[in-house]
Amino acid sequence: MSKAIGVKEWVIAEGYIPSESRGPQPQMTSHETVCILNGSDQDAHIEITIYFSDKEPVGPYHVTVPARRTRHVRFNDLNDPKPIPRDTDYSSIIRSDVPIVAQHTRLDSRQEANALLSTVAYPNAA
Amino acid sequence: MSKAIGVKEWVIAEGYIPSESRGPQPQMTSHETVCILNGSDQDAHIEITIYFSDKEPVGPYHVTVPARRTRHVRFNDLNDPKPIPRDTDYSSIIRSDVPIVAQHTRLDSRQEANALLSTVAYPNAA
Amino acid sequence: MSKAIGVKEWVIAEGYIPSESRGPQPQMTSHETVCILNGSDQDAHIEITIYFSDKEPVGPYHVTVPARRTRHVRFNDLNDPKPIPRDTDYSSIIRSDVPIVAQHTRLDSRQEANALLSTVAYPNAA
Amino acid sequence: MSKAIGVKEWVIAEGYIPSESRGPQPQMTSHETVCILNGSDQDAHIEITIYFSDKEPVGPYHVTVPARRTRHVRFNDLNDPKPIPRDTDYSSIIRSDVPIVAQHTRLDSRQEANALLSTVAYPNAA
Repeated sequence: MSKAIGVKEWVIAEGYIPSESRGPQPQMTSHETVCILNGSDQDAHIEITIYFSDKEPVGPYHVTVPARRTRHVRFNDLNDPKPIPRDTDYSSIIRSDVPIVAQHTRLDSRQEANALLSTVAYPNAA
Repeated sequence: MSKAIGVKEWVIAEGYIPSESRGPQPQMTSHETVCILNGSDQDAHIEITIYFSDKEPVGPYHVTVPARRTRHVRFNDLNDPKPIPRDTDYSSIIRSDVPIVAQHTRLDSRQEANALLSTVAYPNAA
Repeated sequence: MSKAIGVKEWVIAEGYIPSESRGPQPQMTSHETVCILNGSDQDAHIEITIYFSDKEPVGPYHVTVPARRTRHVRFNDLNDPKPIPRDTDYSSIIRSDVPIVAQHTRLDSRQEANALLSTVAYPNAA
Repeated sequence: MSKAIGVKEWVIAEGYIPSESRGPQPQMTSHETVCILNGSDQDAHIEITIYFSDKEPVGPYHVTVPARRTRHVRFNDLNDPKPIPRDTDYSSIIRSDVPIVAQHTRLDSRQEANALLSTVAYPNAA
């Protein structure tokens, strides 16, 4: 498994954390997640930058994904340097020092039954 | 951040704005969105062209996304040169003068609980 | 617009048409769709082949998408050479004589509120 | 059809099998699937490795997809070397000896109406 798995930069253009939820917490809390796989044999030191429609980007938020591990990072839980505002449009760029794979998922439980979306993030190889 | 983030042309083959909605407006209005991230240091001047099944394409619609900003553009809100008809199949091509990343999302609230879909748009590098 | 938009071969590995539906017909009929954009100035002659888990592939099904048009093809409506069975796992390959872009969408209305999924199909450039 | 269709390695960074379900079994059981198309004329011998957040990867799980067939593999059904725990974050890597195409789908029926997500997996060509 010496081959690189993934790339070092990923983009998620969609981003929105609903402030309302229905159902048991925390599994049914409306949330937005970036699922990261580090298939390499080195820890991945990751920086996430958040972009907004009306102000300068915020970050980086620091996340570590150990070698041969996955981490499903809820944007809801990113607090340093500051929480991501709810009900607000944003985008994110995820940069790592080793190749990773990133996938974007949202669970929206604002109405009576939850809705889901997911897509592999955009692998920026430019 | 001098590296290009994304490409200059994106395609969304799916397109359909339901005319019906349930729940509070405007967040639960059935809508279709292209989320655009401009991670560059120059404003992005964007042209969106809409394709139909039975008539010539309409557009371009003009959208600007400032440097280091995101904009989540609701197709529902595009009115110039003309509104996009509801309950109608369409596709779109998004062209920019600087590299961007585009992601497609729909919220469908026609029934009792909303449904969501999302996918990174097709980056046309041909 | 002389540049090619898309590629000539696309793959959708997921495929499943639920036999049950709730809500008004045909918009709320459970269905599976491939949305095709032909952004070129020539008509696209398209062949769709359906793959199953337990028998030889069926097809090709023939679809034409005129120049500068989109067509959202419901797999439910493909009948020649034969209808696609409901409640059955399948995959599809879409081949065109001019470059196109293809996106996969399902509306599932088996339960009280509809569910949606969508993804850009896999562009086979191999 | 001598051209390769797809690639030999795919990554799904998102993974989570809900332990609860509503509605008739097995079609409405909450499940997670990788849909695999083998469009080649040789059988595909596939190995799936599962990555976790807090322990070493498990696998490989062995799956065969015959020539010119699709197989929609439910992660719920993978039992050898051991079942995948429910309500647990995971990721997966899918490796094949012939080119394939892989797409990820989840049906979540924990609440009153099912939710769906799908995305083409990440084709690792590195």
